[in-house]
Amino acid sequence: MRNESIFIIGASTTRFGELWNSSPRELAKEAFTNALSQSGVGVSNIEALYVGNMLGGMLGHQENIGSFYAEELSLSPVPAFRLEAACASGGVALHNAINSIKAGLYKTVAILGIEKMTDAGGDLVASALMAAGSDEERGSGITFPGLYALMAQAYMQQYKIKEEDLAEVSVKNHYHGSFNHKAQFRFQVSIADVMKSSRIADPLKLLDCSPVTDGAACLVITRDESIIPKNSVSIIASEVGTDTLALHKRSSFTSLRSAKEAAKQAYAKAGVKATDVDVAEVHDCFSIAELIALEDLEFSEVGRAAVDVKKGKFTRGKGKTIVNPSGGLKACGHPVGATGIKQAVEIYEQLMGTAGDKQSVKNAKIGLAHNVGGSGAIATVHIFKKSKMQSAKIKTKFKVQNLQYF
Amino acid sequence: MRNESIFIIGASTTRFGELWNSSPRELAKEAFTNALSQSGVGVSNIEALYVGNMLGGMLGHQENIGSFYAEELSLSPVPAFRLEAACASGGVALHNAINSIKAGLYKTVAILGIEKMTDAGGDLVASALMAAGSDEERGSGITFPGLYALMAQAYMQQYKIKEEDLAEVSVKNHYHGSFNHKAQFRFQVSIADVMKSSRIADPLKLLDCSPVTDGAACLVITRDESIIPKNSVSIIASEVGTDTLALHKRSSFTSLRSAKEAAKQAYAKAGVKATDVDVAEVHDCFSIAELIALEDLEFSEVGRAAVDVKKGKFTRGKGKTIVNPSGGLKACGHPVGATGIKQAVEIYEQLMGTAGDKQSVKNAKIGLAHNVGGSGAIATVHIFKKSKMQSAKIKTKFKVQNLQYF
Repeated sequence: MRNESIFIIGASTTRFGELWNSSPRELAKEAFTNALSQSGVGVSNIEALYVGNMLGGMLGHQENIGSFYAEELSLSPVPAFRLEAACASGGVALHNAINSIKAGLYKTVAILGIEKMTDAGGDLVASALMAAGSDEERGSGITFPGLYALMAQAYMQQYKIKEEDLAEVSVKNHYHGSFNHKAQFRFQVSIADVMKSSRIADPLKLLDCSPVTDGAACLVITRDESIIPKNSVSIIASEVGTDTLALHKRSSFTSLRSAKEAAKQAYAKAGVKATDVDVAEVHDCFSIAELIALEDLEFSEVGRAAVDVKKGKFTRGKGKTIVNPSGGLKACGHPVGATGIKQAVEIYEQLMGTAGDKQSVKNAKIGLAHNVGGSGAIATVHIFKKSKMQSAKIKTKFKVQNLQYF
Repeated sequence: MRNESIFIIGASTTRFGELWNSSPRELAKEAFTNALSQSGVGVSNIEALYVGNMLGGMLGHQENIGSFYAEELSLSPVPAFRLEAACASGGVALHNAINSIKAGLYKTVAILGIEKMTDAGGDLVASALMAAGSDEERGSGITFPGLYALMAQAYMQQYKIKEEDLAEVSVKNHYHGSFNHKAQFRFQVSIADVMKSSRIADPLKLLDCSPVTDGAACLVITRDESIIPKNSVSIIASEVGTDTLALHKRSSFTSLRSAKEAAKQAYAKAGVKATDVDVAEVHDCFSIAELIALEDLEFSEVGRAAVDVKKGKFTRGKGKTIVNPSGGLKACGHPVGATGIKQAVEIYEQLMGTAGDKQSVKNAKIGLAHNVGGSGAIATVHIFKKSKMQSAKIKTKFKVQNLQYF
């Protein structure tokens, strides 16, 4: 492994939502063009493309997704790869892109997360999403809200929390989302709103669930010192864990082994603790998923996440570690293959102080992104650090100044 | 990039064919168990799993494919990844696995290529395979044999060859396949057989086309010197190129820019020339594809591949560079996600001299595998070298012997 750090030099997302007038091509181009423009490098500097996408084949009848987007983004003949890991497709695309740079193959690569979900119709989307789960459980007729509802039931029973406590997660994330002009939902919700929303899979109600979303997100990352700006964000850990697809084979319904494993490794590699994290994007596909994430990531003690959320420990303006400043999957939206990249974009903006209305931390140093596939069969944890770059360019300037001085 | 080389220590495929009695799980387990057993390491030594698969979602309604097979192979919670690049899914899975080792993340990883195609029915398979192509061309009603037929028409016109010259490729590959007890087709065919077989897309006939196949292949690769046997095979280049999905956007119908780019880079990285290659597996999804491959890989001069095939330049017992000793996609079969890994398994066996009845080279040093996705939108080229390992273990033994001597 090279000693050089890897830096984010461009980061952008499209608006998230029901984007009936935009094709996947257009979403990809928008995210890529904006990230590239921000990075200051040209198309010819991008040496490879990594794409996170889950449903291109099942909903869009398009596979060969790496080459497809390489062509659309005028990147051919550079290598292009499509990574699929259900809702963690973005996270694993970023992980493999990082590896390719560490392997010494490339200096600068782009990572695109993309999903176009609304065109296909609700039944088809629900059916396609179940392809992330185990065939035995799928065969029983259970849906993803049903799987997470089982986790919620187990968690509520084990830690004596109420449905209103789950609702607190949605209230927080909709509050955060109200500041995000790219979010699918910019309205706030109350506990009462969540409680009276339609029941989807007991105890989860409509406002406990993330929506079906279209969107794309793009990162440009590099180890090329000559193009890294003085103030930047480096990626200091990228870890992945897996578990069984089927819930019934797991030893716990109230934590995800995949995420715990990835988090443990990531903290060790980065040399930071959970208490060092200033800002995090976690995979709140359902309200219960955020409670579990907060404990798997060690932001809360086991069984205490609901209490911590209620106290405002993770809320902007109140807490020390702000969780889901974008509004999370719940309010910002969840275009599955794009989510892992959007999380990294959000952390980049929060650390750089360029998050605009949604800026939720000041002078933050450490950020974290947690992306989960299926009901926890795979999870990725990335840790980011605000860095002052002592670049080759800057060093040169310093020498010149010295010469002038003397 | 680490200086250590990466070695293949386990390599196996299932039988290829219409395997109605085997599930994808069973095929994966068979290939993995045999590769692992050959490697001499245990499940606990496998630090990550890379899976090449194209059609799990569209034909099997299963995504989250990395985690799915990690669970089936008892590898969870290790990281697991699914790479998709149409028929080059196997090749890109191997490429990303190699990167992860070079990045210093892992010492030993497994790569699984798998596809179960026959259960879905012919129409559905033909439709799903078209997801590898461009939507404009798909929308015109053209199929993959149609796309390659266009290339064949252009090639025949440009280089003045006949349909009988295309047929020579199938004759050679069926001859090679007749020695392969794992091949889908073990019968030989004559020029007359090819010429009188049903026309699929003019000028391609049934016996110019590779079949629909079930199968799995697995490699175990490592940089851990302590487990590399004295005689082994190292991977000395792994390169990828891309091009447009649509044929009508390309400047040439008679060569693939993706493959030429990957080959050029691979030869440069490996420090070998085409004439150094003793044995190769190339992507002969159609007879014309092998002619184009032979030229893109510089085994033949441009426009001369048909003449060279006819002369026996690539035929076992006659040629210097033996091409498709397994029977290729044509006779061994083409389970799309597995093909790229099966090619590497074949080259490993040929270099090790363990290919049994299908052994086609003696004391070969350099092998090559060429895997193409779609009609050439992506291509991977891997170069392999027979190596004598001066392993840590062997060095230790030597010291012990020295001590005994004195």
